[in-house]
Amino acid sequence: MKNKILKYQEIINQEIDKINFSKKPVNLYEPIKYILSLKSKRVRPTLSILSYKLFKDDLDTILMPSISLELFHNFTLIHDDIMDNADIRRGKKTVHKKWNKNIGILSGDILMIYAYSLLEGLELKIYRKILKRFNEISIMVCEGQQLDMDYERKDLISEGDYIEMIKLKTAVLIGFSLEQGGIVADESKSTTKKLYDIGEMMGIGFQLMDDYLDVFGSPGFGKTIGGDIIANKKTYLMVKLMEKSDEKDLKKIKNLKKSKNEKEKIKIISELMIKYDINTLAKNTIEDYFKTALSQLEEIKSESKYKVILKEYFDEMMVRIN
Amino acid sequence: MKNKILKYQEIINQEIDKINFSKKPVNLYEPIKYILSLKSKRVRPTLSILSYKLFKDDLDTILMPSISLELFHNFTLIHDDIMDNADIRRGKKTVHKKWNKNIGILSGDILMIYAYSLLEGLELKIYRKILKRFNEISIMVCEGQQLDMDYERKDLISEGDYIEMIKLKTAVLIGFSLEQGGIVADESKSTTKKLYDIGEMMGIGFQLMDDYLDVFGSPGFGKTIGGDIIANKKTYLMVKLMEKSDEKDLKKIKNLKKSKNEKEKIKIISELMIKYDINTLAKNTIEDYFKTALSQLEEIKSESKYKVILKEYFDEMMVRIN
Repeated sequence: MKNKILKYQEIINQEIDKINFSKKPVNLYEPIKYILSLKSKRVRPTLSILSYKLFKDDLDTILMPSISLELFHNFTLIHDDIMDNADIRRGKKTVHKKWNKNIGILSGDILMIYAYSLLEGLELKIYRKILKRFNEISIMVCEGQQLDMDYERKDLISEGDYIEMIKLKTAVLIGFSLEQGGIVADESKSTTKKLYDIGEMMGIGFQLMDDYLDVFGSPGFGKTIGGDIIANKKTYLMVKLMEKSDEKDLKKIKNLKKSKNEKEKIKIISELMIKYDINTLAKNTIEDYFKTALSQLEEIKSESKYKVILKEYFDEMMVRIN
Repeated sequence: MKNKILKYQEIINQEIDKINFSKKPVNLYEPIKYILSLKSKRVRPTLSILSYKLFKDDLDTILMPSISLELFHNFTLIHDDIMDNADIRRGKKTVHKKWNKNIGILSGDILMIYAYSLLEGLELKIYRKILKRFNEISIMVCEGQQLDMDYERKDLISEGDYIEMIKLKTAVLIGFSLEQGGIVADESKSTTKKLYDIGEMMGIGFQLMDDYLDVFGSPGFGKTIGGDIIANKKTYLMVKLMEKSDEKDLKKIKNLKKSKNEKEKIKIISELMIKYDINTLAKNTIEDYFKTALSQLEEIKSESKYKVILKEYFDEMMVRIN
């Protein structure tokens, strides 16, 4: 399985290298080549390819549409990083820090247009289907980013609000990655809908796991433990903690927001999470999402070996939290 | 003629009002409704409709694609205003000043996606043709904005550089507005190419006239006279003035850049323009573009009365500079 995935990643990277971006203006295209060259697992194109392979065997038809997802994703990264004032992306300077915000805005814009243009080779009937969904999905992703910014300024948000936000911001594009494979393979509406649902479930699960690992992961995974706590980010764990805390603890949490003592802040918040059993709660919720997604994958009618490969790919991405 | 154009503007405005933008998140959609509600002549959709009417009579087929151009144009306005740090657009606050830059970035993004989605109703074969050109044109518009920013930081640019920049930033979308009408009417490649060329010529002409009127227009036209001079903008007139000036005058111009005495600055620069006959030169260049465009329009095979209406619309937009 691993070898197959690595092979796809390599092909995807080669194809991205070959995209015929104009050479000028340099300030527009250098940032695009830069962000696309940063180390990435190419999750979305890989999912799209694996999903297509459930039904059809040739790679050529799905390759460019799958890469279109990566371009779209990178457009959102460039713009989100400006909005979040982020310095680092994938271990390197963000585009707007390496160049400037104006260049970030414009190179993001053009990356989105290139995402559309990579779909041009699709067969006419499928082209329209894909574009219709691509437009819908893109709009949802933007709505998710706006909700994220709106929620950052709120004191309290509900679990439902949070799940809706990460669904829009992250999960719908994972859903569409799988759905695209099905649409390009000309599968029925009911199958492509199921593929979308599987991806959406997995997408929510991945984001929740990301939230979990920020507090309860091991430092070896590349992320600084407690980064979200220091940044006062409203993660799933934080939302649940504030929901469950009694008044005294809630006050403690609010007072900690301005604390400059990072170590103490992380310690107290994570202890409170354990006190209210938020870690177990989060683990169970994540497992529910993954289990539902995997059982829905079982229902997809395909005799292809790629069903197992897709399942193993999910497993790999889940990263054991037990 | 005037009545017909006003009727189209009204229909376009009504259709824009009816676009089914989501209601939430408010911070994403209010800015979009705001910028689309600002007073505008709807030049691009009007051109697209008139061009279509040269060949076919129904309005329904071209209406949504024509409005797609207006949405795309407004996306570029929102993002350009952020990049240019502009306070005022069409006499009102720019989106990022009324809200903030993040909201400007994101509402611009979503407006571009909506521009794509308004094309969905097109007949399949035409849909693909339009999208292919739409992608190409959009990329050029972004390249034009990048060149504009690049050139602002240069001391000297050539006439050729300047024309290339305004072609990309402004004229290609005017060209595509006419071209779109032809493509949607299923006209031949040679006709749609000609329509594009006419629009591109007119678009360059319009921008040059805009530059001209900033210095030699009458203040009644809504623009402050000399605004571009105060802002040290590299307009066509400025590019030509710097090209023609002797060393002494060139030094004078460069020294004036930092001058806070706006009246004096405008007076000296416009006197120098007259000294080097830049006003006549500009007038002649503008007339050349318009004449070439109009003679190409003559070559378009159409018996429709809309050929006269389109010509009159061009005339109206040219604003007499003599």
